[in-house]
Amino acid sequence: MDCKNSQCSERCTDTSTMDSKEKRKGILERLNAGEVVVGDGGYVMQLERRGYVKAGHWTPEAAVEHPEAVRQLHREFLRAGANVIQTFTFYCSEDKLEISGNVTNITGAQINEAACDLAREVANEGDALVAGCVSKTPCYVKSHSETEVKAIFKKQMDDFLKKDIDFFIVEFVDHVEEAVWAVEVLKTSGKPVGATLCISPHGDMHGVPPGQCAVRMVKAGADIVGVNCHLDPLTCVQTVKLMKAGLEKAGLKAHLMIQPLGFHTPECNIGGYTSLPEYPFALETRAMTRWDIHKYAREAYNAGIRYIGGCCGFEPYHIRAIAEEVAAERGFLPPASEKHGLWGAALEMHTKPWVRARARREYWENLLPASGRPKCPSMATPADDYEKQLETKIQM
Amino acid sequence: MDCKNSQCSERCTDTSTMDSKEKRKGILERLNAGEVVVGDGGYVMQLERRGYVKAGHWTPEAAVEHPEAVRQLHREFLRAGANVIQTFTFYCSEDKLEISGNVTNITGAQINEAACDLAREVANEGDALVAGCVSKTPCYVKSHSETEVKAIFKKQMDDFLKKDIDFFIVEFVDHVEEAVWAVEVLKTSGKPVGATLCISPHGDMHGVPPGQCAVRMVKAGADIVGVNCHLDPLTCVQTVKLMKAGLEKAGLKAHLMIQPLGFHTPECNIGGYTSLPEYPFALETRAMTRWDIHKYAREAYNAGIRYIGGCCGFEPYHIRAIAEEVAAERGFLPPASEKHGLWGAALEMHTKPWVRARARREYWENLLPASGRPKCPSMATPADDYEKQLETKIQM
Amino acid sequence: MDCKNSQCSERCTDTSTMDSKEKRKGILERLNAGEVVVGDGGYVMQLERRGYVKAGHWTPEAAVEHPEAVRQLHREFLRAGANVIQTFTFYCSEDKLEISGNVTNITGAQINEAACDLAREVANEGDALVAGCVSKTPCYVKSHSETEVKAIFKKQMDDFLKKDIDFFIVEFVDHVEEAVWAVEVLKTSGKPVGATLCISPHGDMHGVPPGQCAVRMVKAGADIVGVNCHLDPLTCVQTVKLMKAGLEKAGLKAHLMIQPLGFHTPECNIGGYTSLPEYPFALETRAMTRWDIHKYAREAYNAGIRYIGGCCGFEPYHIRAIAEEVAAERGFLPPASEKHGLWGAALEMHTKPWVRARARREYWENLLPASGRPKCPSMATPADDYEKQLETKIQM
Amino acid sequence: MDCKNSQCSERCTDTSTMDSKEKRKGILERLNAGEVVVGDGGYVMQLERRGYVKAGHWTPEAAVEHPEAVRQLHREFLRAGANVIQTFTFYCSEDKLEISGNVTNITGAQINEAACDLAREVANEGDALVAGCVSKTPCYVKSHSETEVKAIFKKQMDDFLKKDIDFFIVEFVDHVEEAVWAVEVLKTSGKPVGATLCISPHGDMHGVPPGQCAVRMVKAGADIVGVNCHLDPLTCVQTVKLMKAGLEKAGLKAHLMIQPLGFHTPECNIGGYTSLPEYPFALETRAMTRWDIHKYAREAYNAGIRYIGGCCGFEPYHIRAIAEEVAAERGFLPPASEKHGLWGAALEMHTKPWVRARARREYWENLLPASGRPKCPSMATPADDYEKQLETKIQM
Repeated sequence: MDCKNSQCSERCTDTSTMDSKEKRKGILERLNAGEVVVGDGGYVMQLERRGYVKAGHWTPEAAVEHPEAVRQLHREFLRAGANVIQTFTFYCSEDKLEISGNVTNITGAQINEAACDLAREVANEGDALVAGCVSKTPCYVKSHSETEVKAIFKKQMDDFLKKDIDFFIVEFVDHVEEAVWAVEVLKTSGKPVGATLCISPHGDMHGVPPGQCAVRMVKAGADIVGVNCHLDPLTCVQTVKLMKAGLEKAGLKAHLMIQPLGFHTPECNIGGYTSLPEYPFALETRAMTRWDIHKYAREAYNAGIRYIGGCCGFEPYHIRAIAEEVAAERGFLPPASEKHGLWGAALEMHTKPWVRARARREYWENLLPASGRPKCPSMATPADDYEKQLETKIQM
Repeated sequence: MDCKNSQCSERCTDTSTMDSKEKRKGILERLNAGEVVVGDGGYVMQLERRGYVKAGHWTPEAAVEHPEAVRQLHREFLRAGANVIQTFTFYCSEDKLEISGNVTNITGAQINEAACDLAREVANEGDALVAGCVSKTPCYVKSHSETEVKAIFKKQMDDFLKKDIDFFIVEFVDHVEEAVWAVEVLKTSGKPVGATLCISPHGDMHGVPPGQCAVRMVKAGADIVGVNCHLDPLTCVQTVKLMKAGLEKAGLKAHLMIQPLGFHTPECNIGGYTSLPEYPFALETRAMTRWDIHKYAREAYNAGIRYIGGCCGFEPYHIRAIAEEVAAERGFLPPASEKHGLWGAALEMHTKPWVRARARREYWENLLPASGRPKCPSMATPADDYEKQLETKIQM
Repeated sequence: MDCKNSQCSERCTDTSTMDSKEKRKGILERLNAGEVVVGDGGYVMQLERRGYVKAGHWTPEAAVEHPEAVRQLHREFLRAGANVIQTFTFYCSEDKLEISGNVTNITGAQINEAACDLAREVANEGDALVAGCVSKTPCYVKSHSETEVKAIFKKQMDDFLKKDIDFFIVEFVDHVEEAVWAVEVLKTSGKPVGATLCISPHGDMHGVPPGQCAVRMVKAGADIVGVNCHLDPLTCVQTVKLMKAGLEKAGLKAHLMIQPLGFHTPECNIGGYTSLPEYPFALETRAMTRWDIHKYAREAYNAGIRYIGGCCGFEPYHIRAIAEEVAAERGFLPPASEKHGLWGAALEMHTKPWVRARARREYWENLLPASGRPKCPSMATPADDYEKQLETKIQM
Repeated sequence: MDCKNSQCSERCTDTSTMDSKEKRKGILERLNAGEVVVGDGGYVMQLERRGYVKAGHWTPEAAVEHPEAVRQLHREFLRAGANVIQTFTFYCSEDKLEISGNVTNITGAQINEAACDLAREVANEGDALVAGCVSKTPCYVKSHSETEVKAIFKKQMDDFLKKDIDFFIVEFVDHVEEAVWAVEVLKTSGKPVGATLCISPHGDMHGVPPGQCAVRMVKAGADIVGVNCHLDPLTCVQTVKLMKAGLEKAGLKAHLMIQPLGFHTPECNIGGYTSLPEYPFALETRAMTRWDIHKYAREAYNAGIRYIGGCCGFEPYHIRAIAEEVAAERGFLPPASEKHGLWGAALEMHTKPWVRARARREYWENLLPASGRPKCPSMATPADDYEKQLETKIQM
């Protein structure tokens, strides 16, 4: 690893353990070997809070405008234990950038390429892979044209292929048909493809159940299938379980991945968290604790999922919680655990006896945290009638 | 400003508006002119989540070990509108570092100096000042020796004075006596001193009421007095009001500052948030939204406070919310507002009509956010009997 | 109407409107004519609170021991608008009384007969019918013997037939098979029979879905079918809708009735409210307001249900709320409405302006009542693993 | 005891233990002997729910119109352990009846006299005393004339004196001055007088602190002083403690009594529960459980209060809970405890193991009951600005 950059040299204290890129195992090699792959967390929401992404637009021009901010977040996820650094290219298709009123004169190609460089730079600081990411296109709903949508995915793929990426991830797609088209395009690269839908256990936006979605994506060539965003971790685990059952029934095989929301969303159904009144500027009270994440990681693992990460709401310490939960399975703790007592152990040195008493697993596992907001409800009414109607149908 | 560093050059797109350091107005110059000074947010809790600070220890060795992480957080606060960059030197007295089992072989002096450099570097990227920060010492409670405690403060001050700082802040002290000692030491430097206690409206840990605390600190030489940490914003505003009233009664004058918690803590009294069962690893549900911060900033402003910042729980977007709330008074928006529609305005472009309907101030001001945690209470029982006893006395 | 009883004469101010018993229309006559029949409320829980029923036993010996208490509650339901007075004979089968450690030396026959007299006395004070009620027997689960169970129902029926009752209700049965047996016995009397199961939308305790349950009960001879107890009103409406759909699909016809809990039970599934940690001594916070009942009565009416009453938790004012909601359909208000301003209208005379402002429908319809219990959760975890397993299966 | 009335004979199974009226000890005799006197519960709210009192008016014409309903509630309180039966004469002053649009042509005198007869009839069924009750008059606020207000109290007292009552209670008065006037009038009868204000720890509506209120009432002749209604039990205990402290400081002696709300009202200050958005038709979720009442009764006893009862929201089972909590001190259980297993003991016979597990004190003492209303808050915002202003003052 060549760290000529002076800033980098300050940080890389544990480079001795890093593999050179050449020796790095690919994503399928790892999953085929039964390894647990820890994914990274959410970029757009976290960078919005840090001041670099505009909510509503959610576009990734910061990869060009403020690379140090993107690089730092990549590093934090790497340090937290992530084995994959996703390119910061969410919504970075030309049609989406146009709609978002891109006045920066930065092209999608520029962002895609800059994002690949940033991801690669940080991935190489550790033993991580780079995943080039594509997400749903406005074109799909507008035109429903396979040709047009595939052309958009092709263009973005070509940007990525100019750079050094290890595999592709299709994510945040809520119609399985669009995901299938994306997979078909990306498979032409010869690289592995993971495909995650942002759907609920009720299925995609056309009502295709999760099991069938998984089958279609695997048949299109996806090597890894699963779910990302839109709903809380345990609900997403349910959805992936349904995918798994569908694949088994169809006699198909694929690896499973999951990157859920880092928020509690018990009221949500099909529409997901954008239907919540708190979206996107008052989701704080729904945020997961690190202990919630331990439960999630264990549930995901027990369900047979081996690529376990997070999406919106997953901050670096949430990713570290995944890595700590599966430390025994992986055989090591992540670098950031040097600054974390397992299950609160470092509180043992606190001056107050009642805080010292919290330095144990049972305490945090069983705590029911108070909101400090007695004038607020604990559940909201989601906004979308569509899902309410569907919920009624399902209940009946 | 000389940005020879390649990384920096990527980012500094609006350096044209920056004053050279020579022209920069001092903290008292600004406050005397009636300007609103926006403080920065909380470092230790945020860097804990990013993976660089150990909860329980809360010491700032990351200034040496991971300068890029500290620098990035400084930059985010600057970009969010902060006029002051505080050195990342919390708990950085030799006696505290020892207790925290400092095994890094990094000395307090090294941290203090590195922290000054980082703060200065980022402050110079904008129109910000650098405040050298000292906090309470274990020595005070242990020895109660004025000589020993003052020697510790003197040592830390000397570290700072080797570097280029603009003024001092004493913070996170819960006995006014210790704050007075700190002020007396720091005033020997000839630089302005701000002094903030982490106390409730009930007074300091010896029961000295806020008004009297303020009087004693001003008499010791503090130019700015106020409150930081331990309790939620509106409670802290109450405490500063009591300080103000005490000063007025005593015929004294000083500027007022406030840097409260970014968490809802309605149950807390004297002991503050460390008494909450959720401290420190399950405070998520208590986090303030940006809209809570708007209310806080306005209340603080209306109370006559002109140095308005945050402490634990204040992330960059909370500081931006302060800056946006006082934009009319200051005459400008912070850089990070380029990525933020005021009061949710950027949601107007959302595809879903119910999300578009949220692009207005009334919506967010009146929203009562749900926790998504129906099995959790909304208030907890603080752990410290001492405060319960006191509360009873006060009620009676 | 001849009120020789001195106490009664005090009360019967509006006897002019009462029909003599001879002219009174039967239950089927009323339902066939499309009338809305308002049922009465819950006896055992309310009489437990009044001091006459032992929780855990829930047996009705008060009909003999404290007839004035039972009579008064009958009167309150009549006054609230009930068209049916159910005999206070819950759990009054010999096998159940034995298990409950009946040390009163009062026989089931004595209770059944006294209860019939009390119900008749009060029914005759207005235009109400008397329903003789049987409920599930311990014998069913213990012996699963059709002969034995039917013998128990036969014995109780014979007690009733010594007295003057108008029709029968089978209620609080959670296995449709036992309900079918009860209906078959009771139909031998030649009187109409209503049959209500205490089941959820998931079906009876053997998993028979509601639609099929209804079909089996109607085929056994039930004239009216529906649901009572165990779950909250809107959930029970769902279950009755499923029954209705099942009957329609089978080409069968029957009247529909509903007598749900007067408690909010959003967490409950198959096991119903006995699985809640609050059962039976801390259900207060779950109690329905009168406004909740308005919504329920309207939902039930819209679902085509014409016999609308309540079970545990329904106090007289809840029954009045049903009667007020369907006043337009029935053409009259109940006697107790002389002491009730519709939708809070009588608050107009309050001295405080903010209370006067509550004298309107919109206020009460939209109010989200606070619990005043900030240390309590809003949802509990039901105790029964069985239902949790089933829930999981259903979700998947 | 002569029970010629046929209905009564049905019920009086344990008359053997009743003293004849002649042997009955007076209220002061009991309190002077150190006995715990259990008061009765709330009439108007409970009879509103039973259909006999109009909310908003809250007048007691049911004593004439529906004596059987009033008699039954008296009996339930007696059976629950009450030593005092209060006349159902709330708001029964002529000026209040007029304002309430009395269209019944029933005079205040008729109600007062009928109410005395009902209370006496039931009191004589056990070992209870009859208290004639007066409450605040609209005249006080309107005229502020001592002559007029005293004339109203005199008239009501004269009605009572035509009947056989044991002592007087002044209750639900929020200006101590009016209570003093009432006491001065009632003391002319020669009978003992208890005086309870509906005030908070902050004092009466003119800001007179509780301690001073107590002193003024005792100086006016009150034999027993305390608090009733408006706020929850523990808050009322606080207020009575302040009264006690005031009396001690003044060197005065008096017995203490308390009859608080049966609702949780943590948000309320001076204005009490009428300021809550839920008043009066959605208070269900705030209702106390019997276990809350155990805690209250113990707190009241420990505070030295020996007359312990309830007001609005106290149903018969709440009074029984007081009697059960102080059973050891009194030496006996109330009659209604024959239908109540202490601390849930009767659940031991339940068929479901998880319900059987609830048959113990620890379970119910520690239960935090869920509201079943996840869309509702746990605290509301009281409506009265006056109290908010005051609260602010107190906090500062």
